[in-house]
Amino acid sequence: MPGDGVGREVVKGATAVLEAVGQRFGHEFEFEYANIGGAAIDESNNPLPNETLKLCKQSDAVFLGAVGGPKWDSLPSHMRPERGLLAIRKELGLFANLRPVIGFHSLLHSSPLKPEIAENVNLMIVRELTGGLYFGKPSERRGENQESVVDTLQYTRKEIERIVEKAFELALIRNKKLTSVDKANVLESSRMWREIVNEKASLYPQVEVEHMYVDAAAMKLISRPKDFDVVVTENLFGDILSDEASMITGSLGMLPSASLTEDGFGLYEPVHGSAPDIAGFNKANPMAMILSAALMLKYSFNLREEAESIEQAVQEVLNAGYRTSDLQSVGSTVVGTEQMINIIVQHVE
Amino acid sequence: MPGDGVGREVVKGATAVLEAVGQRFGHEFEFEYANIGGAAIDESNNPLPNETLKLCKQSDAVFLGAVGGPKWDSLPSHMRPERGLLAIRKELGLFANLRPVIGFHSLLHSSPLKPEIAENVNLMIVRELTGGLYFGKPSERRGENQESVVDTLQYTRKEIERIVEKAFELALIRNKKLTSVDKANVLESSRMWREIVNEKASLYPQVEVEHMYVDAAAMKLISRPKDFDVVVTENLFGDILSDEASMITGSLGMLPSASLTEDGFGLYEPVHGSAPDIAGFNKANPMAMILSAALMLKYSFNLREEAESIEQAVQEVLNAGYRTSDLQSVGSTVVGTEQMINIIVQHVE
Ligand SMILES: CC(C)[C@H](C(=O)O)[C@@H](O)C(=O)O
Ligand SMILES: CC(C)[C@H](C(=O)O)[C@@H](O)C(=O)O
Repeated sequence: MPGDGVGREVVKGATAVLEAVGQRFGHEFEFEYANIGGAAIDESNNPLPNETLKLCKQSDAVFLGAVGGPKWDSLPSHMRPERGLLAIRKELGLFANLRPVIGFHSLLHSSPLKPEIAENVNLMIVRELTGGLYFGKPSERRGENQESVVDTLQYTRKEIERIVEKAFELALIRNKKLTSVDKANVLESSRMWREIVNEKASLYPQVEVEHMYVDAAAMKLISRPKDFDVVVTENLFGDILSDEASMITGSLGMLPSASLTEDGFGLYEPVHGSAPDIAGFNKANPMAMILSAALMLKYSFNLREEAESIEQAVQEVLNAGYRTSDLQSVGSTVVGTEQMINIIVQHVE
Repeated sequence: MPGDGVGREVVKGATAVLEAVGQRFGHEFEFEYANIGGAAIDESNNPLPNETLKLCKQSDAVFLGAVGGPKWDSLPSHMRPERGLLAIRKELGLFANLRPVIGFHSLLHSSPLKPEIAENVNLMIVRELTGGLYFGKPSERRGENQESVVDTLQYTRKEIERIVEKAFELALIRNKKLTSVDKANVLESSRMWREIVNEKASLYPQVEVEHMYVDAAAMKLISRPKDFDVVVTENLFGDILSDEASMITGSLGMLPSASLTEDGFGLYEPVHGSAPDIAGFNKANPMAMILSAALMLKYSFNLREEAESIEQAVQEVLNAGYRTSDLQSVGSTVVGTEQMINIIVQHVE
C-alpha cells in the first residue's frame, strides 16, 4: 500500500531492493497493490476499503508507505487518511510496533546530537499500537454547546500483557535490558502497566528491568541513548519517543518499523509520514522503507542473511558518501530518491 | 514549600538570593514555610495539609522545591507526594505553567546537542497545568477482576481558551511566533484545541501561528530549537516536551518555571524533581530554583531590574566556570549546592 505523498516514491524502493534480493538469493517475491489513506478516499470515499483489507489478509506480509496530506485535512475526522492507518492496525491486530534506532557511524554529521552521544546507539522502541488514547471511547465533544471534550486512554490487562511479553522476548535476544516507560505518578493506566511489567519480570530473570517516567525518558533518550536496549511503552508515548529518537540517526528518513500480530504476521512501514512538502520531487529518503523490507525478511520470513544483505547495502552506500537531501552534509554526494534506490539495488546485487 | 529531597536544599538558594536582592535594591522579603508532598505525609498524613494551602493563599507568591521519593512510592495513589503537587496546582487554579528554555553560551559543553544547534536558543513552553489526563475522571480500574483501566483526557473550551490566550499574550511581548502542539490527527481534544487556537489567532494578527503534531515537535525541539519562540500545549505533552527541551541547556537543573492563575498569582518551582539519589549530598544544582525566584520578581512583583540582577548573576557565575556536578566539563570548577548559592549571592550583591 503505497498510500500518499512520498509513500508512493519510497515503496518503489522496497520492491526494487527485494527484487534484487530475490535474484541474488534465489527467491521470488510476488507484489500486489492496494490503496489506503488519501488515495483510497479519492478512489472510493473510504480511507481503508474492504478490498484493501481483504488483500492484506491474504498476503504473507504488508508494506505501507505513508498516508495523509493537506488535500484531505479539512475532511471530517472519520474520513481522514489517518483513519485508514489506524483502522488497518486495529483490523489486522498489529499490536506490537517495533522501531529499531541505530546510530550509523557515517551519519554522525547529520545528527543534532554530539557524535560521542549518537555513536553506537542501538536501541529498539516497542510501541503498543492498537490501544490507549488512539482507540479509547468516548472520544467526543460534550455539553449542549459542545463546551467540553474528552478522549479516553484505555487498556485491558491482556493488551498490556502481550506487548510487555513481546518486549521481554526481544530483550532476551538482544542485550537483556528492558526499560518500561510510563507516567505512573499520575495515570492509573500507567500504574497497571508497571504492575504487569513487574509480574512478567519474574518470568524473565535474565532481563534487567527498569521503570522510567515518560518525561525522564524524553531526556535520557537524547542525553544517554546508549543506556537503552529495549524500550516498551504505550501507544502515544511510543509515538512521541520514537520520533524524538529518530534524531539520533540524523533523520526520520532512516527509521524503519515492523508492526506484528500475535501470530507473527507483519506490516512494515517507515516511521516517517507522507511529507507532502517534498512529495513528487524525487527528494524523499527511501532508506526507512528499504530497511523496513529488511525487517520483513527477518520477522515475516526468517530470511536473516537476506535481511542483512539489505542492511549492509545501506551501510555501504552511506559509507560511500551518498545522501538524500534530508541528510546532506559537507563532502557528501546528494542524490534523489530514484538514484538512491538504484545505488542500494546495485550494492545488494 | 521546600518539599522533599533536593527541594529542601535548593529552596535555601532562592531565599538567600532574594535576601541579597532585597539588600541591594532596598526591599524586604518575608518568608513563611510549610510542608507538602512526602514531608507533609510524614507529618500529618496528608500530601497537601489545609494549613499549607491556607498559608499559600495568604501569601503574595509561593515557592515550591520538589516532591517525592522512594520512601513514599508504595503508598496508595491518593497518599503519594505527587498528589500534593497536583492538588496545589488545582486548588490554587495555577493553569498556566511557563517554562522558559535558554541556551546559555557557557553551558554548550554540557548539552548533548551540537553547539550550533543549542546556542542562542530562547523559547518558552506554555504548558496547561490543571486539565487533561492529569485530572480527568474516570481514572480507574474496571471489570470484575479489574481487567481493564481507563484515564480521561478532558478539557473544557474555557480551559483551552485561557491557556491559548496566555500564550498569545506572551508571544506578543516576545518574538511574535506561536507554535501550538497537539495530536489533532488522532485526538478529538486536539481538534478542539486547534480550532480554538485558530479562533484566537484572528485576535492577534501580529502573531505568526503554526500547528505541529506532538511527535513532530519532539523532533524539531532538538533538531531546530531556534525555530521556536512560544510553544503552547496541553498538560502531558507539555510535561514531556519541557523535560526534553531542558537538554538544550545541558541539564534539567537549569530550568525554572512559573505557574500562574487567572489573576496573575504565581507559584514558582524548578522543572526538576526531588532527585532522591543525590538528595542530602550537597550536590543539587540550585540554579533552576534561583532562576524561578527571578521569574517571581518579574511575574508576581513586576520587579524587572531585580529579576535581571539574578539572571545576570547566574550568567556571570557560569562564565566564571563554576558548575554543579550535573554540568561538569573539562576545565570547570565543580562546587556543591551551598557553595554555588554563596557564589551567586555574592554576584547579586
Ligand atoms: C499518522 C499518525 C496517526 C501516526 C501515529 O500517530 O501513530 C504516525 O505518527 C506514526 O507514528 O505512525
Ligand atoms: C511529579 C510530576 C507529577 C510532575 C508532572 O508531571 O507535572 C513533574 O513531572 C512536573 O513536570 O512538574
